[in-house]
Amino acid sequence: MIPKGFLFSAVEAAIKKPGRRDLALIYSQQEATMAGTFTTNRVKAAPVRLDMRRIKTGRGQAIIVNSGNANACTGDVGMRDAREMARLVAHDLKLSPSLVYVCSTGGIGTPMPMGRLRSGLSEVTAGLGACSINDVAAAIMTTDTYPKIASRTLKVNGGTGTLAGICKGAGMICPRMATMLCFLMTDIAVDRKALDTALRHAVVRSFHRITVDGDMSTNDTVLIMANGMLGNRPVTEKSRAYGAFRDALDDITFELSKMIVKDGEGATKLIEVEVRGARNEAEAEKAAFSVAKSNLVKTAMYGNDANWGRIMAALGYSGISFSEERVDISFGKVPVVRDGVSNGRDADAEKVLREKEVRITIDLKRGRSSARVLTCDLTEEYIRVNATYRT
Amino acid sequence: MIPKGFLFSAVEAAIKKPGRRDLALIYSQQEATMAGTFTTNRVKAAPVRLDMRRIKTGRGQAIIVNSGNANACTGDVGMRDAREMARLVAHDLKLSPSLVYVCSTGGIGTPMPMGRLRSGLSEVTAGLGACSINDVAAAIMTTDTYPKIASRTLKVNGGTGTLAGICKGAGMICPRMATMLCFLMTDIAVDRKALDTALRHAVVRSFHRITVDGDMSTNDTVLIMANGMLGNRPVTEKSRAYGAFRDALDDITFELSKMIVKDGEGATKLIEVEVRGARNEAEAEKAAFSVAKSNLVKTAMYGNDANWGRIMAALGYSGISFSEERVDISFGKVPVVRDGVSNGRDADAEKVLREKEVRITIDLKRGRSSARVLTCDLTEEYIRVNATYRT
Repeated sequence: MIPKGFLFSAVEAAIKKPGRRDLALIYSQQEATMAGTFTTNRVKAAPVRLDMRRIKTGRGQAIIVNSGNANACTGDVGMRDAREMARLVAHDLKLSPSLVYVCSTGGIGTPMPMGRLRSGLSEVTAGLGACSINDVAAAIMTTDTYPKIASRTLKVNGGTGTLAGICKGAGMICPRMATMLCFLMTDIAVDRKALDTALRHAVVRSFHRITVDGDMSTNDTVLIMANGMLGNRPVTEKSRAYGAFRDALDDITFELSKMIVKDGEGATKLIEVEVRGARNEAEAEKAAFSVAKSNLVKTAMYGNDANWGRIMAALGYSGISFSEERVDISFGKVPVVRDGVSNGRDADAEKVLREKEVRITIDLKRGRSSARVLTCDLTEEYIRVNATYRT
Repeated sequence: MIPKGFLFSAVEAAIKKPGRRDLALIYSQQEATMAGTFTTNRVKAAPVRLDMRRIKTGRGQAIIVNSGNANACTGDVGMRDAREMARLVAHDLKLSPSLVYVCSTGGIGTPMPMGRLRSGLSEVTAGLGACSINDVAAAIMTTDTYPKIASRTLKVNGGTGTLAGICKGAGMICPRMATMLCFLMTDIAVDRKALDTALRHAVVRSFHRITVDGDMSTNDTVLIMANGMLGNRPVTEKSRAYGAFRDALDDITFELSKMIVKDGEGATKLIEVEVRGARNEAEAEKAAFSVAKSNLVKTAMYGNDANWGRIMAALGYSGISFSEERVDISFGKVPVVRDGVSNGRDADAEKVLREKEVRITIDLKRGRSSARVLTCDLTEEYIRVNATYRT
């Protein structure tokens, strides 16, 4: 389901290898309220720096996005190129350049192929409306193996609004934003502050709680556009509809973040690490990430090995304080560790590990807080993808 | 070269698969001054906790060590077993149990096979002197592919003293102690305080500056025994000989730590990451570790890909502050990045990457401090070793 008033376009601009679309445009027929979150990496790609300035206005109408080149570590040239991309799109669409956001994903350190891009840009604006949201989701993929789309409808003031999102991920996926781009769209009118608050609430519990390889990217961006074409009174934090809107946004971002991990480079299974019984949520999150990021845990999961000793070791170096002799660990519903020692159930647990989705539950028995982090297994295919990424 | 007065033994106690020695003993004919450093993982194996208490006396005469079982996460039984190992060795050698140190390495969470171990222990004490230091170095291996030994001689008060060390590593190798055991021996008499200070100085710049997979183990231990059989006046921190002793210890530990990384699970090459131009050493170390631990940098090195963008990204999320537009990066002597942007030399750099040892030099141009961290590439073989570790 697509929210009203959004048009799409995707073309081949020859940034990637021939035969793959690599330039896409999302356009709202009406100027939209916007919010965004960006990578916390100190090294930020030029388009990220540009968008971070633009988002301060809370307004926008188009997102131009390319795959195949991150436009990161490209110096002054990179910023000039990002600005030119926005300007060319703005010119064709008769918009102010300040309403055009630019996103790039791909390899770092190579200047953008502006010659090819310029013709691609006129093509992509000319083709607006000829493509579906799926085409855009496919065009932004790098090492992703499938496009990632999610949507929800919800009742607002008697009308039915739609919220849709697409994203790409696959590598350089780490807490506090990953190499990921996510574009969210809704036809529900939402006041700027409410949109920003709801987005931050959603991102903290979705894209900030996933890891594929622990590497944080220079380009991560989440943007949401609310064009108000449903015609409702704008939703504020005090509106009745705000809760439902926030829940829908939480759902979509969680669903998309789960797709990213499932499609992690080389991954054969999704692993959910839940830490319970922590003193507070920050402690639970820290412990869960330590386990979720451990190469040894991730390779054991790949090998269907209920090697819980590696989980204990990862908890031990996580930096939180806890008592080893109180820890319980389960794989799925099989309790393998009770009070810090083996329960003799490793063989049963190994059956659980053969599933495509595995839940590891760790109870620290210190308090009532919990956190859940999504990760994937680490396989030979991850190595192959990343050893040959540029060849 | 072996320091005077040290005897060795290694036997098969059937802890590992048949055909591999897995129980070894190091014995000093004379009671020795001892110092040690241990894992900072909160989850510590029983023998580590035992040794941490014993080392407070600064005295010792024997080290009993097994591979194939880490005796970690084994509860009260584990501590009882570690104590029994020390007691049985002490009985056979007619020593106080407090002079016997216990080390274990291998899988976590399985109780020690004490039945088989007890007969192994009488065999290993009976065989004392029949084995070489090489046999011990081989018996403590887990996924290591070769034994690791280093030694130096130095003049002390007119005599020639010897310092020798062995270690094992391979997996769970991370800063602040790795899954590694290291035993250092010298016949030079060294005062307890000087021995402790020199050991800490050496460990900080060797074993604390290596990473294979970023996982910190529950069992890491470095022990040094100085039995004084050279007959010199004990070396103190004020002695003339102290500098030479400390240098020799620094050399040996660096050499051994380099061997550990070279023999990292699945590694095909050694990578030295040097960060220069930092404000202080801690900042340099933090930046170097962020690069050295990045799976994306490590897979690029495996693929001989001069993908410096991944280095910039890892610096960016290291947590230190720096200016992207000042950073220089070289592979070997090839400068690939100058002032934050590409130097157009990637093809030349790729020749350097085909070597077995690669040096990555990063200049932040912020100050005069530097730090060097050793790492290895990440390969399909690492995945295979760790996905099937217990099968």
